[in-house]
Amino acid sequence: MVNPFVMIPILNSTISIPSQFPSAIPTLLATATEAENAPMILTGVLLSLVVIYIASKLGGELSKAVDLPPVLGELVAGVVVGASALHLLVFPESGAVASDSAIMTVLQLIDNLTPEAVTSIFQTQSEVISVLAELGVIILLFEIGLESDLRELKEVGYQAAIVAVVGVVAPFATGTVGLMFFFNVTAIPAIFAGAALTATSIGITSKVLSELGHLKSKEGQIIVGAAVIDDVLGIIVLAVVASLAKTGEVDIFNVIYLIFSASVFLIGSILLGKFFNQTFVAIADKLQTRGQLVIPAFTFAFLMAFLANAIQLEAILGAFAAGLVLDETDKRKELDKQVVPIADILVPIFFVTIGAKADLGVLNPAIAENREGLIIAIFLIVVAILGKVVTGWSVFGQAPINRLAIGVGMIPRGEVGLVFAGIGSASGVLSKPLEAAIIIMVILTTFLAPPFLRFAFGETAKSEEAVEQADLIK
Amino acid sequence: MVNPFVMIPILNSTISIPSQFPSAIPTLLATATEAENAPMILTGVLLSLVVIYIASKLGGELSKAVDLPPVLGELVAGVVVGASALHLLVFPESGAVASDSAIMTVLQLIDNLTPEAVTSIFQTQSEVISVLAELGVIILLFEIGLESDLRELKEVGYQAAIVAVVGVVAPFATGTVGLMFFFNVTAIPAIFAGAALTATSIGITSKVLSELGHLKSKEGQIIVGAAVIDDVLGIIVLAVVASLAKTGEVDIFNVIYLIFSASVFLIGSILLGKFFNQTFVAIADKLQTRGQLVIPAFTFAFLMAFLANAIQLEAILGAFAAGLVLDETDKRKELDKQVVPIADILVPIFFVTIGAKADLGVLNPAIAENREGLIIAIFLIVVAILGKVVTGWSVFGQAPINRLAIGVGMIPRGEVGLVFAGIGSASGVLSKPLEAAIIIMVILTTFLAPPFLRFAFGETAKSEEAVEQADLIK
Repeated sequence: MVNPFVMIPILNSTISIPSQFPSAIPTLLATATEAENAPMILTGVLLSLVVIYIASKLGGELSKAVDLPPVLGELVAGVVVGASALHLLVFPESGAVASDSAIMTVLQLIDNLTPEAVTSIFQTQSEVISVLAELGVIILLFEIGLESDLRELKEVGYQAAIVAVVGVVAPFATGTVGLMFFFNVTAIPAIFAGAALTATSIGITSKVLSELGHLKSKEGQIIVGAAVIDDVLGIIVLAVVASLAKTGEVDIFNVIYLIFSASVFLIGSILLGKFFNQTFVAIADKLQTRGQLVIPAFTFAFLMAFLANAIQLEAILGAFAAGLVLDETDKRKELDKQVVPIADILVPIFFVTIGAKADLGVLNPAIAENREGLIIAIFLIVVAILGKVVTGWSVFGQAPINRLAIGVGMIPRGEVGLVFAGIGSASGVLSKPLEAAIIIMVILTTFLAPPFLRFAFGETAKSEEAVEQADLIK
Repeated sequence: MVNPFVMIPILNSTISIPSQFPSAIPTLLATATEAENAPMILTGVLLSLVVIYIASKLGGELSKAVDLPPVLGELVAGVVVGASALHLLVFPESGAVASDSAIMTVLQLIDNLTPEAVTSIFQTQSEVISVLAELGVIILLFEIGLESDLRELKEVGYQAAIVAVVGVVAPFATGTVGLMFFFNVTAIPAIFAGAALTATSIGITSKVLSELGHLKSKEGQIIVGAAVIDDVLGIIVLAVVASLAKTGEVDIFNVIYLIFSASVFLIGSILLGKFFNQTFVAIADKLQTRGQLVIPAFTFAFLMAFLANAIQLEAILGAFAAGLVLDETDKRKELDKQVVPIADILVPIFFVTIGAKADLGVLNPAIAENREGLIIAIFLIVVAILGKVVTGWSVFGQAPINRLAIGVGMIPRGEVGLVFAGIGSASGVLSKPLEAAIIIMVILTTFLAPPFLRFAFGETAKSEEAVEQADLIK
């Protein structure tokens, strides 16, 4: 990904050699640090996973008990254990240091760690949890790809593209212009905040759709298709805005490159997939040792995720394409079944982590400096919701379709919005109130989308596929 | 774990603030570095996983094709992709830097990274793969715990304890005394090298036993039981030797503490497990959302692994205990089935990583400085093998038992031996030749154990459980 904002890094590591080892060379000492810290990193990761799992199950089950989608409960549980409340799960990206982390306090009690060791363990274990969360969303998108029917998705292709483009242009234009005229924000921060309004969170949307049993409905397919295109558009918008903020002008070649590579990647992988299908089945049939189906499938999914990342797209796009391709094979049912427990232990890490990374403290109106952010936030939330809801009415040639559901399905910004907020905050382009406003917008759109979507589809109007997908919803 | 050798280390991070962001505070800039590196860390992890999966399947399948246990092929494949040959998978612990890693070269081609960014990405992605490997061995031991029958293990408890104690004392005493008298090694390095001969690798041994269909045989249960006790004894030996090297005297209180806590932990968790069983089944029955069985099970396994780690034992000991406890519930069969695909994608990371971390370059006799190490290595290998083989004859009161198989089953040192070598190398206690000799001993005992074990059990003498465990062996 091209993030030119944050280009000059920064940790110059100097190594001091303890006097009792005068002959030891620096490499060995650095190794010693890692060798010593490694068991504590594992301890921290294990404790974080225990916290994540307990939170996800408590939140998911409570949410289900009051008839809300479990994913909402997992997000809220993440907020409770995260930066906003219990501080069990905090991350350096959101500005936390080791002493903010309750888990690091526990590790301190277990072992008498030096402050340097604590900082290093905190950063590494947070990075490990973040990567596990990213593997979680990759596997989620792979699973969704496996469940999406390519022929059905192709049928809705044009509609999805229109929905995606309208859903990017409408909130971007309204947000940027509104900030400049109503709130006297200067051009570059306004464009940045406007851009943060564009990208839909495909992960949250498709999880909720699958929980509601609408993933394979016409509306569901348009939403997922549009969210995929939206994700690609979001990366392009981020690259454009970042290069604009850096140089004062748009790098048109990069824009063309990003649009071109994303299109070639998705269409190309689907076309090549038709040939790869047979190879995959032949390989899986020949293997005799354990994991003969799941290892080739994950090798393919991770390779596609890597390739997508390598050409500056999102890894989840590659995993989704891999799922779409393998969906067309006869191994599909067996693979579906084996992916379920793997997704079950990795996907909750993603949702709890999103919640944990959001700091609801910026919502507190009792603190004076939050108020400016709150007013801007209300404006951004309105734009964020209306800018996506209108997309439903851009769908053409589909008489009996739930337009409200399509628009509402595009609302959650989730992790993509948080990427914008994180980069904006780190680069100093965004003022504190504007940054706070974007975070609040991301949190509320993400939290409101599931109940809104449920309302838009109508609780009673469950299609027969809800029954068909029963073991998925559980 | 107490590793007092490597006690005061030391990355002093200094942060340089670019002049164009005079108002940016250091925390935000550090965040910027991580935010920028994060996508490349994920890219590196994905590419490493693709390499690991392809290597594990090629190695495992080729090994199976020539009728050897797949785990041996996975180890050799790890050696091929690792520090010894292709350098696709190298780790900072074994002295590699970012420029040694072929994967980092690929990342460099994808994105124009600064040297600081490359170093930071290399270290973090290596740490993530190491943690995934550790989660792999934790899940392997959990699965083995699920498959071990507690009543059968209790029956062999006394024999296992004798085998373990003999298997620690015999190679430790012979190795230390031999090094001091035949090779004029001074006391502390000799004791350290002798200690490195003690701990059996329960991971490799039990995987091979399960592949041979002998995990539940009398011999298999004695070996696994002894390996568990051995692992505990190994930690105690490491703590004792480390404190001896540091202070010149043995910290008797720590020794007593370690022995006591390990015994209380294992016996206590098994006794408490009888009550926890019902609670676990009741919880799993009440849950309505996805992962209702696998999430409580992994929460328990990771919690036990954390607790074991927290009281300075090995995490795998906790996971094994958790498996033993859950084996006693009626959910066992369903859980077994769901753990299989999760183990399939995580366990190969462990075996390929062990192979990748070993550098067979220290075996090359053409380089003069390797020769001293080679001669010491031959001595250590003989002691390592004979010191464990004799343990079979320490089993009492068991007339018709395969004593050779028990002794041979205790041979592989694997990851535990590598921990000794790593700490010895990092602390500067071991000379280069002695360090090389320990690494060679670890590699050869690990690589020789599977064919030796196969020979000791006799290829034709497969018990009926080999058939019963057929889907496990595949």
